[in-house]
Amino acid sequence: MAFPSEQSPPPGIRARLHEIIFEADTPAGRAFDVGLLVAILLSVLAVILESVRSIRVEHGQTIRWVEWCFTGLFTVEYGLRLFSVRRPLLYARSFFGLVDLLAILPSYLSLVMPGAHSLLVVRVLRMLRVFRVLKLASFLGEAEVLLTALRASRQKITVFLGAVLSTVVVMGAVMYFVEGEQHGFDSIPRGMYWAIVTMTTVGFGDITPKTVPGQFIASVLMVMGYGVLAVPTGIVSVELAAATRHGPVTTQACPGCGVQGHDADAAHCKYCGTRL
Amino acid sequence: MAFPSEQSPPPGIRARLHEIIFEADTPAGRAFDVGLLVAILLSVLAVILESVRSIRVEHGQTIRWVEWCFTGLFTVEYGLRLFSVRRPLLYARSFFGLVDLLAILPSYLSLVMPGAHSLLVVRVLRMLRVFRVLKLASFLGEAEVLLTALRASRQKITVFLGAVLSTVVVMGAVMYFVEGEQHGFDSIPRGMYWAIVTMTTVGFGDITPKTVPGQFIASVLMVMGYGVLAVPTGIVSVELAAATRHGPVTTQACPGCGVQGHDADAAHCKYCGTRL
Amino acid sequence: MAFPSEQSPPPGIRARLHEIIFEADTPAGRAFDVGLLVAILLSVLAVILESVRSIRVEHGQTIRWVEWCFTGLFTVEYGLRLFSVRRPLLYARSFFGLVDLLAILPSYLSLVMPGAHSLLVVRVLRMLRVFRVLKLASFLGEAEVLLTALRASRQKITVFLGAVLSTVVVMGAVMYFVEGEQHGFDSIPRGMYWAIVTMTTVGFGDITPKTVPGQFIASVLMVMGYGVLAVPTGIVSVELAAATRHGPVTTQACPGCGVQGHDADAAHCKYCGTRL
Amino acid sequence: MAFPSEQSPPPGIRARLHEIIFEADTPAGRAFDVGLLVAILLSVLAVILESVRSIRVEHGQTIRWVEWCFTGLFTVEYGLRLFSVRRPLLYARSFFGLVDLLAILPSYLSLVMPGAHSLLVVRVLRMLRVFRVLKLASFLGEAEVLLTALRASRQKITVFLGAVLSTVVVMGAVMYFVEGEQHGFDSIPRGMYWAIVTMTTVGFGDITPKTVPGQFIASVLMVMGYGVLAVPTGIVSVELAAATRHGPVTTQACPGCGVQGHDADAAHCKYCGTRL
Repeated sequence: MAFPSEQSPPPGIRARLHEIIFEADTPAGRAFDVGLLVAILLSVLAVILESVRSIRVEHGQTIRWVEWCFTGLFTVEYGLRLFSVRRPLLYARSFFGLVDLLAILPSYLSLVMPGAHSLLVVRVLRMLRVFRVLKLASFLGEAEVLLTALRASRQKITVFLGAVLSTVVVMGAVMYFVEGEQHGFDSIPRGMYWAIVTMTTVGFGDITPKTVPGQFIASVLMVMGYGVLAVPTGIVSVELAAATRHGPVTTQACPGCGVQGHDADAAHCKYCGTRL
Repeated sequence: MAFPSEQSPPPGIRARLHEIIFEADTPAGRAFDVGLLVAILLSVLAVILESVRSIRVEHGQTIRWVEWCFTGLFTVEYGLRLFSVRRPLLYARSFFGLVDLLAILPSYLSLVMPGAHSLLVVRVLRMLRVFRVLKLASFLGEAEVLLTALRASRQKITVFLGAVLSTVVVMGAVMYFVEGEQHGFDSIPRGMYWAIVTMTTVGFGDITPKTVPGQFIASVLMVMGYGVLAVPTGIVSVELAAATRHGPVTTQACPGCGVQGHDADAAHCKYCGTRL
Repeated sequence: MAFPSEQSPPPGIRARLHEIIFEADTPAGRAFDVGLLVAILLSVLAVILESVRSIRVEHGQTIRWVEWCFTGLFTVEYGLRLFSVRRPLLYARSFFGLVDLLAILPSYLSLVMPGAHSLLVVRVLRMLRVFRVLKLASFLGEAEVLLTALRASRQKITVFLGAVLSTVVVMGAVMYFVEGEQHGFDSIPRGMYWAIVTMTTVGFGDITPKTVPGQFIASVLMVMGYGVLAVPTGIVSVELAAATRHGPVTTQACPGCGVQGHDADAAHCKYCGTRL
Repeated sequence: MAFPSEQSPPPGIRARLHEIIFEADTPAGRAFDVGLLVAILLSVLAVILESVRSIRVEHGQTIRWVEWCFTGLFTVEYGLRLFSVRRPLLYARSFFGLVDLLAILPSYLSLVMPGAHSLLVVRVLRMLRVFRVLKLASFLGEAEVLLTALRASRQKITVFLGAVLSTVVVMGAVMYFVEGEQHGFDSIPRGMYWAIVTMTTVGFGDITPKTVPGQFIASVLMVMGYGVLAVPTGIVSVELAAATRHGPVTTQACPGCGVQGHDADAAHCKYCGTRL
């Protein structure tokens, strides 16, 4: 704090606030994160409980009171975030800046407009704030491995989804033609919805084939979907294995030949034999 | 263009057209492919929307007009394809040639026959043309890996499907006998349909066992299906891993014996020992 | 019978018959197997079709006639099998001997007893004879890999199934207590049936939790089942990978050190360097 | 038995009892375990059968008599366990001590309170005692591999479950807003229950989207869930492969440095180079 600017304390306070609010490597920052996580989960719980009619009728007043407490808390937090970053506008327009704003806006808007129902749903998006906190938490590593695995197989998954969606369109049209409106397949989109429900093995049963050819086509689709289900699983397994394989490798470079990527328990470089 | 035939420009035009229409490695060919992809998707979307009664009633005239535009476009494209290939008949009888014809035929047939309903479904087969375009696109590599994995495990999947279908026949007969017609199992094919719905874990619930022995047999089938589901997934995972494993292999040929396929970190050819 | 026995032709005929009927490595044996496979599938198809009421009413006479043809054929085949093996009683009491007998017995019994309905189901067990033929066919290798994988993971699968069934018993009892008879959970076995339907993600929907605590417990069970589903898949994947890995290895022993298990494309022993 | 205390036989009897009751490496201990396993399974079967109304009405007296036999048996066993351990209180308060007590308590409590219904469910918890016996059995190794695999991927599974539950909350709220009370989505918890039923591909069909936007959102959720299902499977596969890979390792210790865990085909210690 000495060198950079001795006469302007705000940057110092800002920097400290930034460290507490945005980072998680100090005890204060960690405590802030845990507190925020609890507040987010409790406020989402309040939103969820408010949607239940019997609870709303009996404890509506209490929930609305709790709601305003959390809104106040998040408003203060939003203000501190705006204050602690160097370029507040950039923060406010970032993805998480908008999520932070969305967490408090509905409550204030409900004062102006009485359309509380749809605002309720927006409030539940506070759940997304959990990801902001988790992003700062220590077990980021594991999430990183998962994301790397998914990102690496993104292209294969695209090809796979393309094939699945083409099948869905064709099967939706075929079932619309074979079963027809009297059996619930009253348009191609409805048939596509049924094809997705079937191929993903969800199988609600709200629309089902009734005719013999329809049930035969459905059987073929199901057995196909059975094998198709194996593809994304296989992709992710392979990518996860690749992402995990590089885990127990040390980052230490060989003093002899400089090659990295030695096993964690290796005593000698496996390429030139120099002692590590 | 000079050497092969100096006095016949058509082959030159044909070759250029062929490059644009059938290949994707020139800017013009790529632009053509993207344009065609958009046209296909839009025309399929029109077919899908037309099947919705409320949209058909309100915007039927517009959709039919759009439909004829796309039919005209695809007719021109089909003509150009016939013109640009050296042996038009061979193309016309190939799988994609037939798909291309099927994309335009229904519209013309609907002028003669008023059975528009069934022709609607045929039109949706245009969706298959997407695969033609994708086949030419650059991310063919990923699809190739997936197809290689599926092709390699084809024989294992056949054995597996044989076992599944035998189980389906036997279980269908058993449930037809145990549950009988009064609980919806009114024939062995119906019982087989139920067995497929159950083994693939789709579980529509349109036909379900009602008696105690029926529910017991169904439970055994479900737990078995649970373990059986693991087999295709395992097969595809293993094949995908094998297909992917050859990724970090270099394309460098050995200067000694000319063999390719060396590991990325190999210092010597593993067949003749020459330094790479 | 002493030195091949010049005066008794039956052993020679028997041996030839045995080779045709039981083996598949001669053209005649292979032709016999293919013919038998077709006959089995057609006879099973006849049984399946006979169970459909409308077909039974219209073509019942034809089907019964076809049925008797196949019964005659299988009776002759059964006789030849008994004749061609050295110890007919041992064969008759073996698993496939009983299956072969079951394939013809119901038709003869239906002459004595008119309870054709239950005999119909027994006839479908002819389907099991397909496995006898497949066992002799050439693509036994693939099935062997699958069976090895399943056998190797048998113990792990037992532990896994034990855990699953304990969960099913406890969850069945809990749901019987929580939901009670008025919501369809009218006994613990019924609750266990529901738990199996739910854990295997089949989800018929014939019995579903209606109360809030019941739906909460069901949610926990489903998310658990979600992760549990991964265990058998993982087991089979790992075993399949292990069973496949040893495929491209040759059985050739090194002439230098006698070690086996060399890669198919290896030119030198990887342990002592001797040329293979 | 000679040295520690020559005049107090109880420790000797206690030690023997402890070996029989708690261990499984003597013939007597193994026989005790098998007997206990059978008794547990039979008593659980009795509880299950008692819950079926028709059986309860007809054989209620017999079942209650059997029930008291098992209660007596387990009471004696519980007493012997208390007697054979050195610190009975510690045992009584351990997890399995409580499970052992729960196995006998409900029967005695039913004498005092006539609320037999809820006590029935508690009795089924005897099923958990199976795990105590299995823990002592010889095929512990396999279970250990499974548990190691699950424990190793615990953190990844936590991240994964966190993402799934966030999705469930947001989707539950969205469907509550889109579909509304008239289509069964009468609160956010109900919507969350539906989202779990859908994402896990169980698909009961007791609540289903009826509106077009609702069915579209449901389709997206299902296709997402399709890919998401691949993640836990991939995780467990990878961890199982890692846990299994250490199988072909020998238990032989290096004569030079004493380190164990050498590959089965290693000729020299990989840490100090001594010939094995």
